[in-house]
Amino acid sequence: MKLQSVGIKNFTCPVSIREQQGGVQQTVAAIKLQAALPHHFKQSCLETFTCILAKYQRDMHTKIFPELLTDVQSNLQAEQAELEMQFPYFIAKQAPVTRTSSLMEYDCSFIGSIDSHVDNQKHKLLLRVSVPLTTLCPCSKEISQQGAHNQRAEVVLTVQPSGFIWLEELITMVESCGSCELYALLKRPDEKFVTEEAYANPMFVEDVVRKVAQKAKNHETIGWFSVSVESFESIHKHSAYAYVDSRDLNQECQSTKD
Amino acid sequence: MKLQSVGIKNFTCPVSIREQQGGVQQTVAAIKLQAALPHHFKQSCLETFTCILAKYQRDMHTKIFPELLTDVQSNLQAEQAELEMQFPYFIAKQAPVTRTSSLMEYDCSFIGSIDSHVDNQKHKLLLRVSVPLTTLCPCSKEISQQGAHNQRAEVVLTVQPSGFIWLEELITMVESCGSCELYALLKRPDEKFVTEEAYANPMFVEDVVRKVAQKAKNHETIGWFSVSVESFESIHKHSAYAYVDSRDLNQECQSTKD
Amino acid sequence: MKLQSVGIKNFTCPVSIREQQGGVQQTVAAIKLQAALPHHFKQSCLETFTCILAKYQRDMHTKIFPELLTDVQSNLQAEQAELEMQFPYFIAKQAPVTRTSSLMEYDCSFIGSIDSHVDNQKHKLLLRVSVPLTTLCPCSKEISQQGAHNQRAEVVLTVQPSGFIWLEELITMVESCGSCELYALLKRPDEKFVTEEAYANPMFVEDVVRKVAQKAKNHETIGWFSVSVESFESIHKHSAYAYVDSRDLNQECQSTKD
Amino acid sequence: MKLQSVGIKNFTCPVSIREQQGGVQQTVAAIKLQAALPHHFKQSCLETFTCILAKYQRDMHTKIFPELLTDVQSNLQAEQAELEMQFPYFIAKQAPVTRTSSLMEYDCSFIGSIDSHVDNQKHKLLLRVSVPLTTLCPCSKEISQQGAHNQRAEVVLTVQPSGFIWLEELITMVESCGSCELYALLKRPDEKFVTEEAYANPMFVEDVVRKVAQKAKNHETIGWFSVSVESFESIHKHSAYAYVDSRDLNQECQSTKD
Repeated sequence: MKLQSVGIKNFTCPVSIREQQGGVQQTVAAIKLQAALPHHFKQSCLETFTCILAKYQRDMHTKIFPELLTDVQSNLQAEQAELEMQFPYFIAKQAPVTRTSSLMEYDCSFIGSIDSHVDNQKHKLLLRVSVPLTTLCPCSKEISQQGAHNQRAEVVLTVQPSGFIWLEELITMVESCGSCELYALLKRPDEKFVTEEAYANPMFVEDVVRKVAQKAKNHETIGWFSVSVESFESIHKHSAYAYVDSRDLNQECQSTKD
Repeated sequence: MKLQSVGIKNFTCPVSIREQQGGVQQTVAAIKLQAALPHHFKQSCLETFTCILAKYQRDMHTKIFPELLTDVQSNLQAEQAELEMQFPYFIAKQAPVTRTSSLMEYDCSFIGSIDSHVDNQKHKLLLRVSVPLTTLCPCSKEISQQGAHNQRAEVVLTVQPSGFIWLEELITMVESCGSCELYALLKRPDEKFVTEEAYANPMFVEDVVRKVAQKAKNHETIGWFSVSVESFESIHKHSAYAYVDSRDLNQECQSTKD
Repeated sequence: MKLQSVGIKNFTCPVSIREQQGGVQQTVAAIKLQAALPHHFKQSCLETFTCILAKYQRDMHTKIFPELLTDVQSNLQAEQAELEMQFPYFIAKQAPVTRTSSLMEYDCSFIGSIDSHVDNQKHKLLLRVSVPLTTLCPCSKEISQQGAHNQRAEVVLTVQPSGFIWLEELITMVESCGSCELYALLKRPDEKFVTEEAYANPMFVEDVVRKVAQKAKNHETIGWFSVSVESFESIHKHSAYAYVDSRDLNQECQSTKD
Repeated sequence: MKLQSVGIKNFTCPVSIREQQGGVQQTVAAIKLQAALPHHFKQSCLETFTCILAKYQRDMHTKIFPELLTDVQSNLQAEQAELEMQFPYFIAKQAPVTRTSSLMEYDCSFIGSIDSHVDNQKHKLLLRVSVPLTTLCPCSKEISQQGAHNQRAEVVLTVQPSGFIWLEELITMVESCGSCELYALLKRPDEKFVTEEAYANPMFVEDVVRKVAQKAKNHETIGWFSVSVESFESIHKHSAYAYVDSRDLNQECQSTKD
């Protein structure tokens, strides 16, 4: 019986990520490595996966994806192989008014794959960024004399780029789509700014998801994408959330053309 | 812009589940309720979702799925709606030798949906069971003079039934596919039994996933299914895992026929 | 060598909890059972703990605490034994304006212990409630022309009662100490109310923790207590939090008397 | 009202950790920073904590603990302040037979504090290491004809050193106290070794906890310590666990002298 996926999960190791500003960031990744195996194959003790990971473990970065995946494919006679690398990534941000700089953390992933059935483009790479932001409820603002409930929300954007794209670009794109951005450090003038900014830009989860999707659709080096938003409601114990991917955007485009 | 999904997550409430033995079990569920909305629709404050849930909250069980989903669909003019109910479920098990009875907990889900684009069968229901079991490594047993590393593993089986099927049936089916079953209570003769049973039945994650898939394929009231296994290796800090779904089994069946 | 604690964790089973309104609520608990063992004792396979739990498992409720703990103590010749039962608990709440009723979930615990070294009061029982509420930042409100950042926060109150006390009492007490309460269901007039209520009652985490502590101190059947608050800031990715327990309150009372 | 603790949690930033071998390791930490505040103090918006963290954020390492804590104490007129830094730490390990090298990850923490009430030693530093290892059940081995159930367990050792001590020393000490160590990479001869090693060294959680405690007690630069072990049983869905700290060891020493 053919297996769509066999592999290892939660293998952790240090990784280096190239920064848009020119440097290299040392961080720590959770690795998932898997392969699709033809039915005649009997995999032994997962030793192959860990051996291949150990070989690259001391210098793990995105450039090794094609080589590592080709290694897996040829060692296991696999039809398809996939490597996911999930890591915290830090970007220096300036507070909106005082311009005080601090480091903000984002949960990011690279998901590379190789597929022997695809002739012209065997290698594929997906990028994923999780970006926290503020959502302020439009309904609450509209009906209340003063104030409006707001909360932290988390946007997850996954894209298949058609050309090179930085994590920084994706993160900045998402951060412009909420009621307000988040910061690690805010002084009093900054806190005044983000409070008033959020109040001036009320957004439901469905507004955020649509805005991110529209920007992703218009971006010249983003092909397929998906966006989800989860908002940890401050007036409820449950979350509000929304999801869209480019599949339906295309359908919509077609129907708009009719 | 059309939204594939808008809804609420992590809404908890008591639920009653019918037991195969004839009783009704009171337990607690995490609810996820979502809808696919046409692009002209502007949803307000998620009030509709919580109002519908609150209406059914006092007597939540699987029989209300069609009615609740129809409510969502008509209230929101939704093309599609989905309700997921995830809950701990308890089954009385007898220890293998002493027959001492104890309650074992399984994480289960019902995932019901309604789709207005499907003419003949608008309603669909998926069942999901998470079943812990022991895996004992065949390779470790083979190469070692004594002993073999073994560990807890978790199987997740999701099925779309073509007829009625009990959670108990699915759980029992999965429990027969590992090196040994797990129990909440084992006396010394039972512990001797499970130790020797696991040693006599060494299995890799890929063996477990294949065995569950084969049983699901042969089951007369299981249509589509997927199976994953994650094994929390006792000699590593990472997990071994495997996944298969019925899509490829069918492809394989076709090719076997050729 | 004497062991302060040996036992089992994450043992789950159904439990029944008496409600203040007179009924009995069926829910599901994670159990932790442990004992302090004298140094000459060699515990075997934890079978004793699971046997005792299995004996009570079908009818688990708070009244069995003394009996179960005495069982553990005598079976293991233990100096001390402790049973913790953690479970989701549901209370019907009415929305503040429309009075629409819905069930709200609270994470609660009973922590019972027996100690052979204490002569007059061998048995002790602690109650713990986790209560979500809204915190609205006083600083943000003061410096901003409109709006104020707010978010979900979680208060954990643990008490050692000197007399009988309901979980409902503790939860209600905590819910009155935030910027506003949370609800499972809010209609538009209710949402207006909670938005304005939170805006009218700005509170830092330290204000919440002090207010809960003051109420606990003044409560006639609460002896020792501790309170913590974690606020999932909507303008940051990190949390604000505060903690106080009755130890220092007493010190403070003493010094006030001087 | 005096507050035992006010502060921030889950603030993440890159940190550098000195390695025993002479290098410096770049990793990522979750930071918890808190202070005990006298009752007349009103803390504003937690800005002080984040400002101080942001000041040190670009070059965060253990040497800045005294300076950072003194900053917190003087800025907030705090009686006591505490900084906890929790991070994944990697050590190169050689497989037991083939000597193949791979990186193993350990969850570690530094917990530094300053207390103005202590005259001679205002600064205190605790070290904590979480070390996974294998436990093989002595009872299961004894009663079974072949095999023995085994599983991954996690030891958490916290120490207050009386002199300098490396994380590497603590980790190595703990790794020698289970049925067998864990590795990121094992080839077939190594897997044979660890299987037979574990089978030759059966240990209950209480044996592990006692062995670690004995080694900590005998270590010349370890003062106070605590040890806990949680074993993720392969034959049950629940965990076995044990805990001991040096408080009772001392009591035991006294009574032994009598």
